[in-house]
Amino acid sequence: MEKENYLQSLITATPMEGRELAIKLARKSIAAIQTDPEIRKKLRADYANDTKQLIASAEVIAIEFQTIAAANNYWRGAIN
Amino acid sequence: MEKENYLQSLITATPMEGRELAIKLARKSIAAIQTDPEIRKKLRADYANDTKQLIASAEVIAIEFQTIAAANNYWRGAIN
Amino acid sequence: MEKENYLQSLITATPMEGRELAIKLARKSIAAIQTDPEIRKKLRADYANDTKQLIASAEVIAIEFQTIAAANNYWRGAIN
Amino acid sequence: MEKENYLQSLITATPMEGRELAIKLARKSIAAIQTDPEIRKKLRADYANDTKQLIASAEVIAIEFQTIAAANNYWRGAIN
Amino acid sequence: MEKENYLQSLITATPMEGRELAIKLARKSIAAIQTDPEIRKKLRADYANDTKQLIASAEVIAIEFQTIAAANNYWRGAIN
Amino acid sequence: MEKENYLQSLITATPMEGRELAIKLARKSIAAIQTDPEIRKKLRADYANDTKQLIASAEVIAIEFQTIAAANNYWRGAIN
Repeated sequence: MEKENYLQSLITATPMEGRELAIKLARKSIAAIQTDPEIRKKLRADYANDTKQLIASAEVIAIEFQTIAAANNYWRGAIN
Repeated sequence: MEKENYLQSLITATPMEGRELAIKLARKSIAAIQTDPEIRKKLRADYANDTKQLIASAEVIAIEFQTIAAANNYWRGAIN
Repeated sequence: MEKENYLQSLITATPMEGRELAIKLARKSIAAIQTDPEIRKKLRADYANDTKQLIASAEVIAIEFQTIAAANNYWRGAIN
Repeated sequence: MEKENYLQSLITATPMEGRELAIKLARKSIAAIQTDPEIRKKLRADYANDTKQLIASAEVIAIEFQTIAAANNYWRGAIN
Repeated sequence: MEKENYLQSLITATPMEGRELAIKLARKSIAAIQTDPEIRKKLRADYANDTKQLIASAEVIAIEFQTIAAANNYWRGAIN
Repeated sequence: MEKENYLQSLITATPMEGRELAIKLARKSIAAIQTDPEIRKKLRADYANDTKQLIASAEVIAIEFQTIAAANNYWRGAIN
């Protein structure tokens, strides 16, 4: 199986797209370790109802977003 | 359902607004994983009374705020 | 109830004041989630005697301080 | 036994290769502490099915990737 | 009781002194939350023998050290 | 007993040496809290077989490495 290239670039048009990319990167990291999509589907129920894990997931997203925001110079040119 | 654009910009007028944005981003990450607002409401009681989870939430806010503060050049021009 | 503006600026006169601000920000994040001061008071005993939670709190303070220290250019002009 | 040099450079041609390097670095850290490959193999089942540990692993990858992305100036010259 | 000023400056003569300051800052954060020195003494046994907490403490030190190392421009002028 | 100076400099010749220094710093932080080498030896078995703790250790190494990599300007001049 060929590996998917899920990250063409860290540059996004808007901060919101940057957020979505952060969420995507977090998910892809989990998929890189647990490679079976069926198992991932079943595991999803485990953490979507467990606040501890939701908070931990939010932390991963926050860290990924730091990188993406820096890459985009914080979209400073975007309209406020 | 159309996706909400909850992040127009990382730029805020004041540090305090930056704090509020950090809290909002943390909440929106959780909502991105647990998409059911009814379940989120119920889960809220779980972590608002558990100091371990309150501290973990504060960590997420701190990381989001790092990004926002950098984006705003730490509001250095603001009145001290 | 009007929201308190607990963060006028990230700029502090001394590194020590920066530490105090970091601790304040960490506390205010918890207060933003658990808004009832009576419950917070009761919860305090839970974490002040639990080393796991004390260490986790110290981590939040360390992250907040990173932001404050960068904002102040690490107080490089201060007397050593 | 001679030590393997698993990190010749932080520079990668593409963001995707940067992601792969981040995952590799995370794995090598674990191998540096648990040096027995047979034990590591057995342990793998422990965390690949535990969402808490998958999320924690994703956090390590996110932190390693921050470093790699900065090293590569966020691949800003790459084609979007 | 007057508050102790335990952080006159982030600038240290050597990287090693920077490490020591990082450890000191981590300890002082815990002391800021658990203010009773007798209780802290008793709690010390809890975490000094628990590898989970030792690792968590090492993480706090690593974060504090990031700040101190940046403040000192990584002691790049120091003799290697 | 005189304190060991285990960190003469953050500058390393290669990225690989930077990784090794990151691992060393993580270990030394633990040794700074649990000062008894005999106890540390016994504790080692606790975390080398526990994936949760291996992942947490990998996180500490990742954070230490961020600092070291920045100090070395990411070894950008090194041969790829």
